[in-house]
Amino acid sequence: MAHKFINEIEPGEAIDDVYLARDPILRSTTRGDLYIAMFLSDRTGRLNGRMWQATEEVYKALPKPGFVNVQGRSELYQNNLQIIINNISIVDTKKVSLEDFLSRTDKDTKQMFEEVKKIIGRIKNPQLKSLVDEFLADKELMEKFCNVPGGVKLHHDYLGGLLEHTHNMLRVAIAILPFYPDVQPDLVLAGVFLHDIGKTEELSYDMAFSYTDSGQLIGHIVKSFIMINQKADVLKAKGTDIEQTILDALGHIILSHHGAYDYGSPKLPATPEAFMVYYIDDLDAKVSQVTSAIESEPGDSDWTPWKTALQTRLYRKKIE
Amino acid sequence: MAHKFINEIEPGEAIDDVYLARDPILRSTTRGDLYIAMFLSDRTGRLNGRMWQATEEVYKALPKPGFVNVQGRSELYQNNLQIIINNISIVDTKKVSLEDFLSRTDKDTKQMFEEVKKIIGRIKNPQLKSLVDEFLADKELMEKFCNVPGGVKLHHDYLGGLLEHTHNMLRVAIAILPFYPDVQPDLVLAGVFLHDIGKTEELSYDMAFSYTDSGQLIGHIVKSFIMINQKADVLKAKGTDIEQTILDALGHIILSHHGAYDYGSPKLPATPEAFMVYYIDDLDAKVSQVTSAIESEPGDSDWTPWKTALQTRLYRKKIE
Amino acid sequence: MAHKFINEIEPGEAIDDVYLARDPILRSTTRGDLYIAMFLSDRTGRLNGRMWQATEEVYKALPKPGFVNVQGRSELYQNNLQIIINNISIVDTKKVSLEDFLSRTDKDTKQMFEEVKKIIGRIKNPQLKSLVDEFLADKELMEKFCNVPGGVKLHHDYLGGLLEHTHNMLRVAIAILPFYPDVQPDLVLAGVFLHDIGKTEELSYDMAFSYTDSGQLIGHIVKSFIMINQKADVLKAKGTDIEQTILDALGHIILSHHGAYDYGSPKLPATPEAFMVYYIDDLDAKVSQVTSAIESEPGDSDWTPWKTALQTRLYRKKIE
Amino acid sequence: MAHKFINEIEPGEAIDDVYLARDPILRSTTRGDLYIAMFLSDRTGRLNGRMWQATEEVYKALPKPGFVNVQGRSELYQNNLQIIINNISIVDTKKVSLEDFLSRTDKDTKQMFEEVKKIIGRIKNPQLKSLVDEFLADKELMEKFCNVPGGVKLHHDYLGGLLEHTHNMLRVAIAILPFYPDVQPDLVLAGVFLHDIGKTEELSYDMAFSYTDSGQLIGHIVKSFIMINQKADVLKAKGTDIEQTILDALGHIILSHHGAYDYGSPKLPATPEAFMVYYIDDLDAKVSQVTSAIESEPGDSDWTPWKTALQTRLYRKKIE
Amino acid sequence: MAHKFINEIEPGEAIDDVYLARDPILRSTTRGDLYIAMFLSDRTGRLNGRMWQATEEVYKALPKPGFVNVQGRSELYQNNLQIIINNISIVDTKKVSLEDFLSRTDKDTKQMFEEVKKIIGRIKNPQLKSLVDEFLADKELMEKFCNVPGGVKLHHDYLGGLLEHTHNMLRVAIAILPFYPDVQPDLVLAGVFLHDIGKTEELSYDMAFSYTDSGQLIGHIVKSFIMINQKADVLKAKGTDIEQTILDALGHIILSHHGAYDYGSPKLPATPEAFMVYYIDDLDAKVSQVTSAIESEPGDSDWTPWKTALQTRLYRKKIE
Amino acid sequence: MAHKFINEIEPGEAIDDVYLARDPILRSTTRGDLYIAMFLSDRTGRLNGRMWQATEEVYKALPKPGFVNVQGRSELYQNNLQIIINNISIVDTKKVSLEDFLSRTDKDTKQMFEEVKKIIGRIKNPQLKSLVDEFLADKELMEKFCNVPGGVKLHHDYLGGLLEHTHNMLRVAIAILPFYPDVQPDLVLAGVFLHDIGKTEELSYDMAFSYTDSGQLIGHIVKSFIMINQKADVLKAKGTDIEQTILDALGHIILSHHGAYDYGSPKLPATPEAFMVYYIDDLDAKVSQVTSAIESEPGDSDWTPWKTALQTRLYRKKIE
Repeated sequence: MAHKFINEIEPGEAIDDVYLARDPILRSTTRGDLYIAMFLSDRTGRLNGRMWQATEEVYKALPKPGFVNVQGRSELYQNNLQIIINNISIVDTKKVSLEDFLSRTDKDTKQMFEEVKKIIGRIKNPQLKSLVDEFLADKELMEKFCNVPGGVKLHHDYLGGLLEHTHNMLRVAIAILPFYPDVQPDLVLAGVFLHDIGKTEELSYDMAFSYTDSGQLIGHIVKSFIMINQKADVLKAKGTDIEQTILDALGHIILSHHGAYDYGSPKLPATPEAFMVYYIDDLDAKVSQVTSAIESEPGDSDWTPWKTALQTRLYRKKIE
Repeated sequence: MAHKFINEIEPGEAIDDVYLARDPILRSTTRGDLYIAMFLSDRTGRLNGRMWQATEEVYKALPKPGFVNVQGRSELYQNNLQIIINNISIVDTKKVSLEDFLSRTDKDTKQMFEEVKKIIGRIKNPQLKSLVDEFLADKELMEKFCNVPGGVKLHHDYLGGLLEHTHNMLRVAIAILPFYPDVQPDLVLAGVFLHDIGKTEELSYDMAFSYTDSGQLIGHIVKSFIMINQKADVLKAKGTDIEQTILDALGHIILSHHGAYDYGSPKLPATPEAFMVYYIDDLDAKVSQVTSAIESEPGDSDWTPWKTALQTRLYRKKIE
Repeated sequence: MAHKFINEIEPGEAIDDVYLARDPILRSTTRGDLYIAMFLSDRTGRLNGRMWQATEEVYKALPKPGFVNVQGRSELYQNNLQIIINNISIVDTKKVSLEDFLSRTDKDTKQMFEEVKKIIGRIKNPQLKSLVDEFLADKELMEKFCNVPGGVKLHHDYLGGLLEHTHNMLRVAIAILPFYPDVQPDLVLAGVFLHDIGKTEELSYDMAFSYTDSGQLIGHIVKSFIMINQKADVLKAKGTDIEQTILDALGHIILSHHGAYDYGSPKLPATPEAFMVYYIDDLDAKVSQVTSAIESEPGDSDWTPWKTALQTRLYRKKIE
Repeated sequence: MAHKFINEIEPGEAIDDVYLARDPILRSTTRGDLYIAMFLSDRTGRLNGRMWQATEEVYKALPKPGFVNVQGRSELYQNNLQIIINNISIVDTKKVSLEDFLSRTDKDTKQMFEEVKKIIGRIKNPQLKSLVDEFLADKELMEKFCNVPGGVKLHHDYLGGLLEHTHNMLRVAIAILPFYPDVQPDLVLAGVFLHDIGKTEELSYDMAFSYTDSGQLIGHIVKSFIMINQKADVLKAKGTDIEQTILDALGHIILSHHGAYDYGSPKLPATPEAFMVYYIDDLDAKVSQVTSAIESEPGDSDWTPWKTALQTRLYRKKIE
Repeated sequence: MAHKFINEIEPGEAIDDVYLARDPILRSTTRGDLYIAMFLSDRTGRLNGRMWQATEEVYKALPKPGFVNVQGRSELYQNNLQIIINNISIVDTKKVSLEDFLSRTDKDTKQMFEEVKKIIGRIKNPQLKSLVDEFLADKELMEKFCNVPGGVKLHHDYLGGLLEHTHNMLRVAIAILPFYPDVQPDLVLAGVFLHDIGKTEELSYDMAFSYTDSGQLIGHIVKSFIMINQKADVLKAKGTDIEQTILDALGHIILSHHGAYDYGSPKLPATPEAFMVYYIDDLDAKVSQVTSAIESEPGDSDWTPWKTALQTRLYRKKIE
Repeated sequence: MAHKFINEIEPGEAIDDVYLARDPILRSTTRGDLYIAMFLSDRTGRLNGRMWQATEEVYKALPKPGFVNVQGRSELYQNNLQIIINNISIVDTKKVSLEDFLSRTDKDTKQMFEEVKKIIGRIKNPQLKSLVDEFLADKELMEKFCNVPGGVKLHHDYLGGLLEHTHNMLRVAIAILPFYPDVQPDLVLAGVFLHDIGKTEELSYDMAFSYTDSGQLIGHIVKSFIMINQKADVLKAKGTDIEQTILDALGHIILSHHGAYDYGSPKLPATPEAFMVYYIDDLDAKVSQVTSAIESEPGDSDWTPWKTALQTRLYRKKIE
């Protein structure tokens, strides 16, 4: 049975479906009866849920947050739609169709990943090649790489977003490298492939997009850096040494790819390759952020609302 | 006869050649004799010139600055090479081989310009097409466009630099536009072509690279903007109207292409096309600046000296 | 019949008057009936309007935004006043008394404009004189100049605000110029007169104060600059040449009059005249902004609420 | 006998005159002989002085810094003029004509001070009147007020500079106050009069312009503030109370008159009067700084060298 | 009878207790009856109060703000608890138990103050000793010093907060001074003791924490500085001179103890003692702010919400 | 034989000693003879060296840089002392007494290290204990830790500087931790011990203080972080797991200990322990920097020259 999306529910409908429950609170009415208030959501929106005649046992059993099956009815209350819950039961995350709760890239993940592998297959330097191959050989990590979002809010904030972003950056890189003959392609390609690899550890995306504790304390820049060094340690244990010079040049690209201290880079770009990765990353992120802000904004106005991150409103009237 | 370049002069040589004279000063020695001190330069460097037993007439006749033919002799004085001038005469600028005094792109100007025309020939919007054609039809302006440097100091600071920069940006633009289907190619191509066109009025490059008065007071961003509006006025007088919407969208790209108020842009990018032109410009400028700083730095060190504009030293060791 | 102002409506009154309708939305009630929600406003405030039993035809015919005649009744709903609409009809903008919708300077426009003309009549330099006369002779532009607000929010945000601001700046200029004998009065007077002339194109004020598309993409600083150059082009066509030196000196004042890159000036002041116009503008704008914030704040407190633009609260207790 | 100014000395002249000696150092030549190197200066410039066959006694007796009578001869050494000292003797500061060493305003001090008194005589509020009168009655302080420079480097850096600056600000204030009827004139006039009064303690100007220890540790803003409070304490002891409200409003003008934290103001302007004093101060200081930079720059160029404090070069070509 | 705290009131209770009334407004209902709306609060929270059938006399008599005795009943209205007021009468502030309205340090004030006196008793320099003793001898001031909060919002924002903060800083100072033998202990101890003494005049805390007018216009940094100078004046009148050098060194610590212009310090630290006081202050303030934010945040999350002042969320999971 | 220090050489002395040679250049005189110019230095200063009648073989054999034995003579040339080299031979670095070339802490290294071990011996958490013990057990690393300077320029810039800085910070930490009971001591002690451990890899100090390539590209913050993770990996291989939570909390302290993005921290402090380590580090570094600047400045002035890093001059007059 198809999921009933939050933004499709009309007042007065019978509800029997799975939603993500968040922030349940046990309260008592004026008459002293207990009830539970919570939010119910999927990827299209969020509603208030109210379960009257609740008990402390029901409350304690609720996941905080987690998936639940809700039986009840929708109603309008003070102009807002809410769901009156009659029965609620916990649902195993594995049985949930995640796509109903987390938006996903509309591009073909498998095809993008094949193209990523093909492009980084151009790397000639044997040590860099060994290093990126070690990453490619890590099935579990590559699985995450293909599914993690590119971010929580700003750009590519959907399942597969990191892959889509990395894939597009690689396409841009090989398209423009011929015009910059003094820039070393191997470092740029390896740098682009791995620049945000730490997001696989920084972001969690099992029910909704958020930061892991470790992600908030350490950040994906340093996490990406350390993952590269750990793969190099593994290679060394297997008998393949990566020279410090190569690790430093690649590591420097990772550390400096936000381009400025204020954006969390502990180092400023100091090699042509670091500059190039920084610009390709920023170009792809900003154009994606801008075009999706323009598309997603409802209404007919030629201008989006003010975008604080860009310090401007965006104009979306097309010429001709 | 080939020009004797400043950086080829050895101590004790006889000199009879054309140099650029600057900042002549008339002074008197302890004994009361008059002499003239000046700088003599070409594109390879600069030496002190001393003309003993000078007269006020000679001094007054000297250009400030300008080209002169110098007869005399080189000598070492306190470890510095200088030129003792016996005779000096003014040389008509038109008879001077400018390439001896101003460095020039080592790329083929004619070929680059042909490619520029070919790429902007892809523009389909009839009004934008009319507008760029009006620029292409302005022979005098295109002559300047092909010769003006890209800047006085930071990047592409040689004759033909603006053309080389614009040409490379256009190549990058058509290479990456396919990966950004929501960005309007016509606006990007016209924006790249014209983004720095005002440098033809901002910079003077007849004897050396410097800013015009008008360039310093107004700046190339606003000059580019106004040149576009003036061409549109000319087209209108000829019967071809450019809609205000198109002029605004293109003008906005010009005004915002430095990306930040602090870099002299009076507007921040607010359209996908403005973001793209900003990034392509900055990428091409910075990579060019970095690779040429790396190449031109003498010595064996793996690091250049501190670069204030980039807030770092640059690392130039290649991998493998 | 006098307009019934929004801030004078009591609960339970019959309504039959013209208001500005904005953001109409067609919705359906729980029972499936259609209704229209919209905002109704004049210069004194804004209320919710509700039209029950609406049809899609009525909705489609509504201006978005525009003036409408509303017949209905006011009522309190959840402590908020709203207007229940029985009939609604579109009103021709020309028949509307704009003063009911847009606040206007309480100074005499005609008298201020006469004084402006008198003060800039002091300009002696014949070319600058021709240039400002060309502006004065443009009836349509001067009409706008006398009516456009000084801004959308911060200062002089009412009809005639630009004139009031320019007029006061000119009075300040002639009062202080005698104390600065090295500053050229002609440039200062012309600079003050034209410093914000581009606001006539940046701002729209037919129904409410807002930015035009062109205003948002280009900004009034560059628009003022280009209008000066266009008038100079017109003069040239008529046989009166304005030297580039004069256009540059005046244009530089316009471009630098915000005093800092961060406030959108693409050039920093580099002449005594540019510094003077910058300070006179900022003084007049800030004192006007501060005194009107102090006056308009309701309540008895000696302090206004926090003013983000000024990074402080304002103190309004008078001495003695 | 007229003082021989440093910038009038030619090579080979006999010297017998008073100069300011600074930074004397005792050194030994290759042969082991002792000599003293020092700087000799007056308000027109500075030269190296060399006293051969010096003794430790002579060295110890020299002031560091102080005025000396020098007998000797000027000579050119490696293109620089220097003075060979035969005899040197200390000169009592009281016998020195300070005007030879410290430049002075070319305006009439007495006349300016009379005008200052006349303008602040307009103050009507009896408490503010008592307060400024208490300052005027302090002969010693007013003597300093009429002589202290306006600063060490940036603007009005000559004897009488503070008076000239304050006087001009007062003239500007009374010229523009009529155009700002909501601004309280008494507070503005008292604020202008006292805004930099602490410079009398911040700056020393007995031999050259410099900061006192106290000036560097505390600064003139806080010193001005405390002087006002001390005068109020004195008045209170005499039976005249100044209300805290008035002291706060005036003190706030003093503390906020640099307009921004970055310029050392511990408070941002929060009253119309504080804004007005800030702008009048900045206008007068900057226009003075800019016009004097333009005048004092030697050479024919239309542009001064780069001015770091203003982040630009200055343009000094006049129109017509 | 114990005070009924706001956060303990249930719906449907009878109320007869003292609360702080703020912002009363007289309104009329749809039927034309008058009622008064106001806020009622104590240190645990705030509720809406409604008094139906009110008169203008009752309204006028209400304090704005002030303490009132309220008789009435609590009820739920649209999910919010409010108090329906039947009778209201003004209560003399002196009869109110302030602890119910203002939170207070949970440390022992008397004991902390004894320890403060003991630590500053270590000061050996006789002049500094006289100065701090003069402060200690000012009973009224010391009473305030022991009760004033450390701030309105950010840290130590409770009665006795300044004492607690100063006490802890003094303990830190004597603990670390032995490791910095080049830092003068007397200046550090006096500087710590007096660094925020001006908060006794900057903050009011009779009913709630807020700034005085004088506090907002002048600020506690300058107020602390002036109080030191006034005590020195008093000592001088009594025959004990404090050298200017000592006043300047101590005053400099006060003026620079925020460490940066942006935080309102008009001077940057320029002595070892000023640096030490700045760091001890910032360490104590920030650690206190962080640990109390961590403790006071409700809920089980390992992260607090975003803290704008610190530009991060805070992590509060303990190890092991 | 004792080393003849550079700052003890008089003109005309015979020289036969070891110096550090840098930047040798082979040049030809006017007559065509080859000579070598170079710098000769030890920790007290630097002189020009000139070797006349040099050959290309000698030049090629010279270290760039490295230690050499120089035989020759000192002489004054144009007021500068230089060394005329007759013979030059390369010296094995191992045979050089490094203390002649690199300044060293005047504290007892062994004793400080013992105290460091004792203080971190207080750590109770078994996992943190294992981790710091793993560092202590790494003899080679601890050897470096005891000898590396604290920095190249700003503070603790001498052999043993990092140990001295860390040792003092640990003393401060245990002195103040009792006053902050909510801060976890184990994390603070481990954080202080390891906060700059990466400087052992960032800095080279075999002949002079400088950055390694890896140090410049990666930086000590990230290097410290990665060293901790590598030790944890080693421990894991030995069977001792360090929980991710502990590694994150400790790693976060390392990454955020510069306190601001602008100072190269990729994360801002988000735990009480991170705030405390940041303040202890900054306090110790700044007080050390300030007191050593004050001590090392020659001359009698109460003020040091302007210190750009601190944006002030420093005052060094002691009270009484």
